[in-house]
Amino acid sequence: MPIKEGDVVILYLNENRQYIVKISRGATYSFNEGMVKADDILGKNYGEFVVTHIGIKLRILRPTLVDTVYRLFRRCTQVIYPKDAALIALKANIGPGSVVVEAGTGSGYLTAILAHFVCPTGIVYSYEIRREFFEMAKRNLELLGLGDCVVLKEKDVRKGIDEREVDAVILDIPDPWNALSNAYESLKSGGVLACFLPTLNQVEKTVEEARRLGYLMIESEELLERRYKVKLGESRPETRMIGHTGYLVFARRP
Amino acid sequence: MPIKEGDVVILYLNENRQYIVKISRGATYSFNEGMVKADDILGKNYGEFVVTHIGIKLRILRPTLVDTVYRLFRRCTQVIYPKDAALIALKANIGPGSVVVEAGTGSGYLTAILAHFVCPTGIVYSYEIRREFFEMAKRNLELLGLGDCVVLKEKDVRKGIDEREVDAVILDIPDPWNALSNAYESLKSGGVLACFLPTLNQVEKTVEEARRLGYLMIESEELLERRYKVKLGESRPETRMIGHTGYLVFARRP
Amino acid sequence: MPIKEGDVVILYLNENRQYIVKISRGATYSFNEGMVKADDILGKNYGEFVVTHIGIKLRILRPTLVDTVYRLFRRCTQVIYPKDAALIALKANIGPGSVVVEAGTGSGYLTAILAHFVCPTGIVYSYEIRREFFEMAKRNLELLGLGDCVVLKEKDVRKGIDEREVDAVILDIPDPWNALSNAYESLKSGGVLACFLPTLNQVEKTVEEARRLGYLMIESEELLERRYKVKLGESRPETRMIGHTGYLVFARRP
Amino acid sequence: MPIKEGDVVILYLNENRQYIVKISRGATYSFNEGMVKADDILGKNYGEFVVTHIGIKLRILRPTLVDTVYRLFRRCTQVIYPKDAALIALKANIGPGSVVVEAGTGSGYLTAILAHFVCPTGIVYSYEIRREFFEMAKRNLELLGLGDCVVLKEKDVRKGIDEREVDAVILDIPDPWNALSNAYESLKSGGVLACFLPTLNQVEKTVEEARRLGYLMIESEELLERRYKVKLGESRPETRMIGHTGYLVFARRP
Repeated sequence: MPIKEGDVVILYLNENRQYIVKISRGATYSFNEGMVKADDILGKNYGEFVVTHIGIKLRILRPTLVDTVYRLFRRCTQVIYPKDAALIALKANIGPGSVVVEAGTGSGYLTAILAHFVCPTGIVYSYEIRREFFEMAKRNLELLGLGDCVVLKEKDVRKGIDEREVDAVILDIPDPWNALSNAYESLKSGGVLACFLPTLNQVEKTVEEARRLGYLMIESEELLERRYKVKLGESRPETRMIGHTGYLVFARRP
Repeated sequence: MPIKEGDVVILYLNENRQYIVKISRGATYSFNEGMVKADDILGKNYGEFVVTHIGIKLRILRPTLVDTVYRLFRRCTQVIYPKDAALIALKANIGPGSVVVEAGTGSGYLTAILAHFVCPTGIVYSYEIRREFFEMAKRNLELLGLGDCVVLKEKDVRKGIDEREVDAVILDIPDPWNALSNAYESLKSGGVLACFLPTLNQVEKTVEEARRLGYLMIESEELLERRYKVKLGESRPETRMIGHTGYLVFARRP
Repeated sequence: MPIKEGDVVILYLNENRQYIVKISRGATYSFNEGMVKADDILGKNYGEFVVTHIGIKLRILRPTLVDTVYRLFRRCTQVIYPKDAALIALKANIGPGSVVVEAGTGSGYLTAILAHFVCPTGIVYSYEIRREFFEMAKRNLELLGLGDCVVLKEKDVRKGIDEREVDAVILDIPDPWNALSNAYESLKSGGVLACFLPTLNQVEKTVEEARRLGYLMIESEELLERRYKVKLGESRPETRMIGHTGYLVFARRP
Repeated sequence: MPIKEGDVVILYLNENRQYIVKISRGATYSFNEGMVKADDILGKNYGEFVVTHIGIKLRILRPTLVDTVYRLFRRCTQVIYPKDAALIALKANIGPGSVVVEAGTGSGYLTAILAHFVCPTGIVYSYEIRREFFEMAKRNLELLGLGDCVVLKEKDVRKGIDEREVDAVILDIPDPWNALSNAYESLKSGGVLACFLPTLNQVEKTVEEARRLGYLMIESEELLERRYKVKLGESRPETRMIGHTGYLVFARRP
């Protein structure tokens, strides 16, 4: 399928130099390797090359969702990592057709990932109270063309959740314990609550409140991701590592 | 929606004692807490209680996919953990409608998770050469009622992959390097290869072969999962931890 | 140097079956592999063999300090791990001749390790208030013959520390914050405080109190130890791992 | 004890700004906070203040061994971390009076730590073949004034070890398997071999060779160190973490 207006593509020089752009007729993109015209990319197939004005060949690659979200989205907040987003999606039982409530939207990274898994038959309602994040998330999510699968709401999840019988509620806010009662009301029986929390003190408060409200099957955990440099006979973990992103708490409405 | 024939339910006593069963009219289930008849569960709603023949109340809970796969499926092999399965699904760009090739099927745990994310419009072709695993995976997957979303094939992925232009190829076999060429043929441009590997030596061989074949954007990593016991003022990581499941290698066909 | 009365030896069958005993003239030791007389070991050299009464050869090996402490000592409490004990010794600047205060003694594992590093010119004063631990630690430490390098005191470190100008104070008690003021008085300028703490809440309280009292260069950390099964081409981390022992806090009296 | 010629001191402004210097009569030290004369420090006691020429007070603190080695020593190689050095010292049974062979010396960090633990009655023989490292290590170690406790040898440990009946051999060279036979000859019965290795491939080769030569009780492991930012109610692991330093292999000569 040839590349068309609105597609997002990676322009690949080598493992260390890659660019990601959204194709917009008439646009010109400028890199260290020279300029590339969108019109020279339109109609080509993925895997083909485009040549910059100074003659450097860049390969046109199809991005994954993770590429688009983590390389093309702007960010105005600490964003969730793929490792955490993926486990939330799986353990919160999210899949095609799921109806999910999320707060806060932040830069929209997790929103995009959740929407990817529920679309086109499911829907993600994402709550955000800070106007500038709301706007940035909106622009970010438009890059993905998720259409009706995401509904951004400029509302405070701690003051109320409009939706009922939802499959999952995902909270990435500083004080989720203040939204757990609303989440309980919103969830269907068996629905999953998932919280992302930077500190263990927040985990304690969240778990205590979840227990008080009658949530069951409460689990707390964290994931550590270790990347490897692989070379025959010399493979080793990378020296630098992300030592902490946040803790995950899962619970169920009975 | 009341519980009906063929549903899978959790019977919950407390955080430490829970049972998972598939509801089959006329069946009787036997636990430490006494016997329960399927007919006493049919027609009830999730969240309600059923009473055993010795008078103990068990709460009927709706299971998540992870509950069903990890507690109800039988296993005849080392099985993949949710943390790894989830990251594979996300980084391999799998979602509703994806067409995925997987090998080996093993006990079908990863197959079930992949199928959950692609159904009902996508499809997972899962290859397995060991007859007893093929049969067990088949029975396991029937518990989920995934219908046409899974096609089990008793074939050797190293000898050929029938499908073309697939979105992702997921290999959990001892020698994935022997299947990388077939995977390359099978993948669409931009399609993702993901391998799960117990040893770093396997990672090396896989990465070397992937480089040789022209795969791009190769990444190797592992995830460590740390569970926490949470109690106000006394929270701490659990003493026992799974120290290793396997390494993940991701790559793209350009 | 031949083996003599009072020596501790390992009797080694293979990597999985080893025994550690203290040699006492006239004694008989009983194992799955049969009985061994102390008198058959006395006078032999390390590396030689002794034969059990049913004819199985066991190799006589010289134990390290870690062998003796972790295999021969009895325990009535959670004991510190070598990884934590070693880092405490190094970061608390402990070495030959150091004068160290420790509390609580517990089963005496850390006491033994600290004494090993300071002897014969230094001294470890170890405080313990629970009589049964005091007695067990005393018996354990006698196995090492550390002589005057350890002084066990049945006193409460929170009520006072007798020693002044000490090089380091090591606290492995549930509420070290209640002993930090006494530790400060006891330390020489530049002396190091080290605390071992199971929970992050304890770390917080300890660090807050240390800051309040004027301690400087406060550091908090933990060590995770990952063991590997090594076999050519199949090496991997062990599946089971200790996920948590405790946190370490270090600080200095200015 | 007042500060005297040749002492190493820390000049402390706050938790983020500290300097370490060796006191040399007549010297002047220059910092962002202004200049300080050695003669203004000489004769003072630890814990007292010195004032820079622009009037800023710096507190004079006594350094630990770790301070001196890791902040004052120059480095021309990858250096070992305290966590690894400490566990090597403990598990290799090193203490006052131990006789240790080490190679390669590198920048002398591990040499200094080993010497600290064995002095003044023990001795560390450290082998290094690269002239520039040999010279740098020599200058570094002179800062500690360890005297006769360290003997630097410009020799190749793979070609021979002169010492016999040593308590431990510590190898931090790229190909320890080529020195294991010499190490075996050098060790006393029960003596410990410890190797520090950046890659798992090196671990495999080392362990295979150690088994072949008859070493017993072979263990392979690594330590991960996680630092915490501690603040009441907001404590969390630091975001950045060292993901890998090296693997440790321990073995015994029977």
